[in-house]
Amino acid sequence: MVDARFFDRTGEIDLSQLLAVCGLKSSGYSITQLRHIVSDAAPLISSTSDQVSFAAQKKYLSQLQNSKAGIILVSDVLISEVPASAIAVVCDDPYAAFVKFLVHMFPSSGHHLTHRPDFPHMGKAVFEKGVLIDNSAVIGSGVEIGRDSIIGPNTVIAAGVKIGRNTIVADNVSIECALVGDNVTINSGVRVGAKGFGWLGHGSSHTPVPQLGRVILQSHVEIGPNTTIDRGALGDTIIGENTKIGAMSEIGHNTIIGSNCLLAPMAGLAGSTILEDGVLMGADSGSAGHLRIGAGSILHARCAVSKDWPPGSMLAGAPAQDIKEYWREQAKLRKLLKGLNK
Amino acid sequence: MVDARFFDRTGEIDLSQLLAVCGLKSSGYSITQLRHIVSDAAPLISSTSDQVSFAAQKKYLSQLQNSKAGIILVSDVLISEVPASAIAVVCDDPYAAFVKFLVHMFPSSGHHLTHRPDFPHMGKAVFEKGVLIDNSAVIGSGVEIGRDSIIGPNTVIAAGVKIGRNTIVADNVSIECALVGDNVTINSGVRVGAKGFGWLGHGSSHTPVPQLGRVILQSHVEIGPNTTIDRGALGDTIIGENTKIGAMSEIGHNTIIGSNCLLAPMAGLAGSTILEDGVLMGADSGSAGHLRIGAGSILHARCAVSKDWPPGSMLAGAPAQDIKEYWREQAKLRKLLKGLNK
Amino acid sequence: MVDARFFDRTGEIDLSQLLAVCGLKSSGYSITQLRHIVSDAAPLISSTSDQVSFAAQKKYLSQLQNSKAGIILVSDVLISEVPASAIAVVCDDPYAAFVKFLVHMFPSSGHHLTHRPDFPHMGKAVFEKGVLIDNSAVIGSGVEIGRDSIIGPNTVIAAGVKIGRNTIVADNVSIECALVGDNVTINSGVRVGAKGFGWLGHGSSHTPVPQLGRVILQSHVEIGPNTTIDRGALGDTIIGENTKIGAMSEIGHNTIIGSNCLLAPMAGLAGSTILEDGVLMGADSGSAGHLRIGAGSILHARCAVSKDWPPGSMLAGAPAQDIKEYWREQAKLRKLLKGLNK
Repeated sequence: MVDARFFDRTGEIDLSQLLAVCGLKSSGYSITQLRHIVSDAAPLISSTSDQVSFAAQKKYLSQLQNSKAGIILVSDVLISEVPASAIAVVCDDPYAAFVKFLVHMFPSSGHHLTHRPDFPHMGKAVFEKGVLIDNSAVIGSGVEIGRDSIIGPNTVIAAGVKIGRNTIVADNVSIECALVGDNVTINSGVRVGAKGFGWLGHGSSHTPVPQLGRVILQSHVEIGPNTTIDRGALGDTIIGENTKIGAMSEIGHNTIIGSNCLLAPMAGLAGSTILEDGVLMGADSGSAGHLRIGAGSILHARCAVSKDWPPGSMLAGAPAQDIKEYWREQAKLRKLLKGLNK
Repeated sequence: MVDARFFDRTGEIDLSQLLAVCGLKSSGYSITQLRHIVSDAAPLISSTSDQVSFAAQKKYLSQLQNSKAGIILVSDVLISEVPASAIAVVCDDPYAAFVKFLVHMFPSSGHHLTHRPDFPHMGKAVFEKGVLIDNSAVIGSGVEIGRDSIIGPNTVIAAGVKIGRNTIVADNVSIECALVGDNVTINSGVRVGAKGFGWLGHGSSHTPVPQLGRVILQSHVEIGPNTTIDRGALGDTIIGENTKIGAMSEIGHNTIIGSNCLLAPMAGLAGSTILEDGVLMGADSGSAGHLRIGAGSILHARCAVSKDWPPGSMLAGAPAQDIKEYWREQAKLRKLLKGLNK
Repeated sequence: MVDARFFDRTGEIDLSQLLAVCGLKSSGYSITQLRHIVSDAAPLISSTSDQVSFAAQKKYLSQLQNSKAGIILVSDVLISEVPASAIAVVCDDPYAAFVKFLVHMFPSSGHHLTHRPDFPHMGKAVFEKGVLIDNSAVIGSGVEIGRDSIIGPNTVIAAGVKIGRNTIVADNVSIECALVGDNVTINSGVRVGAKGFGWLGHGSSHTPVPQLGRVILQSHVEIGPNTTIDRGALGDTIIGENTKIGAMSEIGHNTIIGSNCLLAPMAGLAGSTILEDGVLMGADSGSAGHLRIGAGSILHARCAVSKDWPPGSMLAGAPAQDIKEYWREQAKLRKLLKGLNK
């Protein structure tokens, strides 16, 4: 579901129009199917009858089998797995077709953002009691800010953003496409909800993948100065309760961080990383994205995670290894090299 | 000593109140001791009779033996080393107890910061002749700016900050809890004096360590765009005279950098690193914190320092090695691997 | 050529004055030579009769032989290669002498910058139809902005900057010494055209190298949040058409990036890197500077390039290797270490 507070949509289209938009043939569908109406996009697992989704890899087989989407763009190897409730649209590159649909349905993909905070049709911003907003801050239309929260100088809160109670947003911060909880602290220069880095293809040409998601900062989160938290591509980037992120970090789109994590400064999490609860990341450590780091894991400084790790892992090195294995290998290697002649 | 310009304090308390605040038993102290008054916190080495300090590790033995603090929180193995001038308070976790004292004594730990630049009781800001401040800059109460300095657009100088003469602060900068010298250049987007990354414990729970120190930028310092210099936890983060720091760097709390150092862009220094004079750091190099890099040392790009190094060290690799040793090992390793079958 | 929109110059000087400025002897030149007038500086290859250039290394021999500069500062080993059209000024350290000339000729080396956006003699800013500028943005003298471009809140555009059509500059951005094309997107917190990291010498003393170049962002470029693009030292930093750079990246002075490149977040390119067209850089990868990465090359995440690579290279590791070689070595090494006793 794309949040209507942040992204305008073109409106309803039926399958025949969708096929035209995506450059696909309209043969092989029933009249009823061609008239099936959709007006939104969603991931397989959370979609409904008026939404479009896609499945390109076998990795997502169980999600495909359980999807409630109205229309699913699929590669031919997956067609037999599409549930009866959905219309299967087979195509060579389901993701590319899906992006074409997104571009059509959400052509602005960001006109509610910080560079245009004022949207009269969204109504006035609403502030609870005790809210303090510096005169130099710029607050967009439809923003809601909870009791006793503080917004610092030169900070920009884009249209539609919600901020909870007792939250401190320091100066020179940008927040867009985001829902921020209670007792959150956002330090100077932080960018919450900016467009993630999403492109289809590379080399002689690449097309932008609309970035239509949000950022959710749960309660008691703290974000260090000059850190960037990109909004989801579709769906949300989530920072769990009481998690603290240090300065100069970059959190990619659709990353999901559990509660009570500590990420020391200069952390880098590529898109769709999952950090379970209570993970501790040393300074300048990072992850390659599309992977899961189990609860309570500890990553040494400069560690670079490249695959899934179970809860309680202790990691070091790049690519990351179990820390005992890492030290053992380092010791063996050093001994071996000492014994060798030039 | 916590600087009263930046942090309000609760006021005087005696030992009996301190024991209550820290959750410790009051038995075993004399009446005179229980009535000993303190109102401040300081590191062992610089503390006085009205200040509280702590010692948890043998590493700090000589500092403990020479401390002039009125009350010292210590672990039982160190009790015999507490000077006669101090009251020794033995506890299981002296650092945790000390943090409880800090939270009580300095409950705001940052309400003079950039998100609230205006504090009438601190008086008006004072500018010497020739100071140029852009209309869009926000200058807090009690700020002092020296002759011919320039403050750029949308920059925020928080209450109590002092800036010297002929200093240039570009646009979109944030400065709080800081003393800035003469002829300093601070480029766009820099954050000086933001809260460092300090937490007690990790995992299911962590509590914030109040960040009550300052940043000192000595004369002729230059800071590259979007760099963050965190203020000390207790005591100062210091950047020495004529040191230049490149863009996108992160300098952790209580780091002390000597004079005439050059830190190329993307440097990362974890908390309490000591860089002696004239150190040259290649791009994207860093240090693990709580260590000393000797005068005139040269660190290759992407070097990651993990232990102390003497003056004149030439370092490469992660973890950093002597550069000759590094190249020798790399050559041997490559030769060895070439000779092996798959 | 130093762009007069961004840097004031002292005015014409003749060779005899130049020799005095650089601390060089005036013996051995003809009267005609001593009266040769110059008023600008340029790289060897693009310079003309009224410009000064320098050559210190044999690496630049062919550029020296083809230079049309009026005066060339050279080391004695290169003197025989100076073209007849130029006056050769031999000195021990041509680069140091050249820097002295720059400091004399361009003493402000940055007074048109974001901290002083208003220069009445540059005339009013000029906006084409449909331009939207937030009230809180600060636009310098002589700025030109093309049709339908948007400038977000709290953004600062320094004097003389040119911005094309349909370009979006988000909030809290700083732009100075730059020419920006059409359909460019610059996200929040980006710093375009700040001073690069250039120093002569290091250790007990270092002197600043004036940073007198520009940034050119060609059309359809996108820059991610909080990224810094430093202006050239002399000449330009260029980001080619349709190239996209992710969040939290640092692009050093005089870097030249071709068209259609994708740089994932946290990229770091040291000064004078050349990236040919269509290069793909994984997250947190970087380059050591003064090197060329061939068209269509692909760099794995955290890859650190240390030398030239031909078109189509696939790279991984630090320092970067061919990716197949990298994986082969890693596999061999792991096998070897497993076979060894502690």
